[in-house]
Amino acid sequence: MDTKTYIAANRDRFLQELFEVLRIPSISARSEHKPDMVRCAEWLRDKLLAAGADRAEVMPSEGNPVVFAEKIIDPARPTVLVYGHYDVMPVEPLDEWRTEPFEPVIDRGRIWCRGANDDKGQLYMQAKAFETLTATGKLPCNVKFMLEGEEEIGSPSLYRWCEEHRELVAADVILVSDTSLLAWDVPSITCGLRGLCYMEVEVTGPDKDLHSGLYGGAVANPANVLAKLVASLTDERGRVTIPGFYDDVRELTPQERADFNKAPFDAEKYKQALDIAEVAGEEGYTTMERTGVRPSLDVNGIWGGYTQEGTKTIIPSRASAKISMRLVPNQDWEKIAELFERHFRAIAPPTVRVNVRKLHGGAPYVSPTDLPAYQAAARAFETTFGKKPLPFFSGGSIPIISAFERILGIKAILMGFGLDRDAIHSPNESFSVDCFLRGIETIVEFYKNYAHE
Amino acid sequence: MDTKTYIAANRDRFLQELFEVLRIPSISARSEHKPDMVRCAEWLRDKLLAAGADRAEVMPSEGNPVVFAEKIIDPARPTVLVYGHYDVMPVEPLDEWRTEPFEPVIDRGRIWCRGANDDKGQLYMQAKAFETLTATGKLPCNVKFMLEGEEEIGSPSLYRWCEEHRELVAADVILVSDTSLLAWDVPSITCGLRGLCYMEVEVTGPDKDLHSGLYGGAVANPANVLAKLVASLTDERGRVTIPGFYDDVRELTPQERADFNKAPFDAEKYKQALDIAEVAGEEGYTTMERTGVRPSLDVNGIWGGYTQEGTKTIIPSRASAKISMRLVPNQDWEKIAELFERHFRAIAPPTVRVNVRKLHGGAPYVSPTDLPAYQAAARAFETTFGKKPLPFFSGGSIPIISAFERILGIKAILMGFGLDRDAIHSPNESFSVDCFLRGIETIVEFYKNYAHE
Repeated sequence: MDTKTYIAANRDRFLQELFEVLRIPSISARSEHKPDMVRCAEWLRDKLLAAGADRAEVMPSEGNPVVFAEKIIDPARPTVLVYGHYDVMPVEPLDEWRTEPFEPVIDRGRIWCRGANDDKGQLYMQAKAFETLTATGKLPCNVKFMLEGEEEIGSPSLYRWCEEHRELVAADVILVSDTSLLAWDVPSITCGLRGLCYMEVEVTGPDKDLHSGLYGGAVANPANVLAKLVASLTDERGRVTIPGFYDDVRELTPQERADFNKAPFDAEKYKQALDIAEVAGEEGYTTMERTGVRPSLDVNGIWGGYTQEGTKTIIPSRASAKISMRLVPNQDWEKIAELFERHFRAIAPPTVRVNVRKLHGGAPYVSPTDLPAYQAAARAFETTFGKKPLPFFSGGSIPIISAFERILGIKAILMGFGLDRDAIHSPNESFSVDCFLRGIETIVEFYKNYAHE
Repeated sequence: MDTKTYIAANRDRFLQELFEVLRIPSISARSEHKPDMVRCAEWLRDKLLAAGADRAEVMPSEGNPVVFAEKIIDPARPTVLVYGHYDVMPVEPLDEWRTEPFEPVIDRGRIWCRGANDDKGQLYMQAKAFETLTATGKLPCNVKFMLEGEEEIGSPSLYRWCEEHRELVAADVILVSDTSLLAWDVPSITCGLRGLCYMEVEVTGPDKDLHSGLYGGAVANPANVLAKLVASLTDERGRVTIPGFYDDVRELTPQERADFNKAPFDAEKYKQALDIAEVAGEEGYTTMERTGVRPSLDVNGIWGGYTQEGTKTIIPSRASAKISMRLVPNQDWEKIAELFERHFRAIAPPTVRVNVRKLHGGAPYVSPTDLPAYQAAARAFETTFGKKPLPFFSGGSIPIISAFERILGIKAILMGFGLDRDAIHSPNESFSVDCFLRGIETIVEFYKNYAHE
């Protein structure tokens, strides 16, 4: 039986199995779901064994367990390590769900459930592609699975787990289905993710809130000062003013820029969807470039003083902001955090004290399009979608992906089959049945292409 | 009996009476205290009658009643209208009080109670000065009292009440004890109050919070934009940049500036008390000038986006700020509100929408030092304190004072006897017994001087 026929013949069972795992409320952010995490890991272990793994285990970590499985057909052949996560985001606000969050329903060709896409639906495509290849006797290489239960809370345990299991997970490439297509008719492969450097700043003036009548005009107001400091972090050309910020940014070649801008982009539709009159950003770059390959600086939160209804005439004692920067190759987030802190302290006037804290960060990631595995993935998309996929640089960050490269020395290929409308992390998450099945087919083709490189 | 002897002889009774009125919890901000407001007004009416008024009434207003009383000795003589307020601020946080908020206690020469200074203690000095003059047969002019019960909530009813009772309250000067001395050994008369123009602004970008990874760098961030707009409202010389803002500001003459800066000011003590390293403000002016006779612009509150513990990677849909300006003669707060709104809209980039609201305002007030009533007050201080009082411009605002001038056409003299340490509006409010008695004596001297002008 060929692989396509096998997938079609087993379609309903694949979906039924997916529904089983979707029903387990494996919310990593809530400690009361610990038993669900274990149940979910054990269920996946059993299914990977049934799909043809030689070995499958639920392995402890400092947090939720990691499911590891492998099938070694020949140590001399290449090895693919599949990464995915079985934990899901919380489901609040509950009253916005049109169906039960953990009871999958198919409606208008889509599976509606928390985790339908992110990432149970997508990791199960990987499991069923593996089954298809083993069942049809067509698996051309070794396969390992590493499925974690803490991605939605920042993978706190997986970094160390990887360091302690380097040999076990050794592979030639990591395959991940946890991203989206540009559109159903615009297949794409995410070949870049931005890094992140998330800071918090606090500006303190007088040791208590002051009467703004008695002191206004004579004492530096921390909220006014904060506004000036934050305002000065970007210039009128939309560039970040922190000295050294752009030093390590790799500039695209004209050819790369031309390729990059081939992705379809409808500015009017974009503005309409966000209800904004104009886009804005770094001078000389397109919107796609601004979010894909250029760094950015955003205030994620700002607060200080009296923020309730009505009036209170005070000079607040302090004001704060959360400020994060998205980074691109080859920016180092720890170095950027240092540059930020040094600059922020340097520009603060002597009338206030500033406190700068580094909250979180991660390196940018890029998978060059000339990697053999990228080429194998690209040809797989061409086979199943009938057109060449566009290499796509997502503005988001998945810190664990760049950590795989740093810790394990393995590049990842991001073959994701979600769509924008899937509302991951939101109420009424969904995943198209067509995406699910086409995903399995495409992953199967990837293996065929990759093992013949 | 001379007036000084009368005051000394009746000292204990004066204090006992003050204690009676202090025990009434006349908190205007809490509707459950309505009966206390009436009780307090009736108590004052009775005491003013007993002190020698020909007539005393509790008169209705749209809100809490106004106590009106008068003694007309000769329509041809000048008339003094005493203004005061019998309402007090709320007492929260209760656990910070060292004594019961509404049970007066004398300790270390001070009366501890809500309202001890603001304004029951100070208005009762006026009542007892009046009694002293009538009882000793030395009242040299006509006297009227207008005591309101809503000052702490912005005098919402008194504006209209004054318009409707212009004839009743007609007078030559208004006398107010509701301010402070620079210090016990630095007697002063408040001859200026700043005005106020309180605005709220909101900057809106996309119609929902956006993922700062997917959109960061391509969409204007309302919090970043708000920071830029707020930052631009003042320049590096500490001046407000709103076009026309300074057009009506009366500049002091060199002589006035010299006089103005005679008030003792200890910069080191000032900075130490506020725990700041440097003062800050408009270039070319002293701290006293910056708070007394120069306008200012302060952010009273700012907020937008994620402000809890930890990180959330969003571009907030909107960000807001409360911004108030202190005004000086001859700035018009309604005009300034218009200039502010026009300017803020003009500088907002087309990438966002802005909403500007006027929340509150009041005119600045000034009582020239060459007014006969000011001169009478100055000589009274000289008699009782042994030194000339300094004319003092307070940075704060009492909007009703400038309204008296506008509605009634009467100037007010602000003879206040509080001290900085009295903690008005805060827990553990107090008022020095010495201030209370010296206040009565000084007010008595004012009448003697004023009626002989």
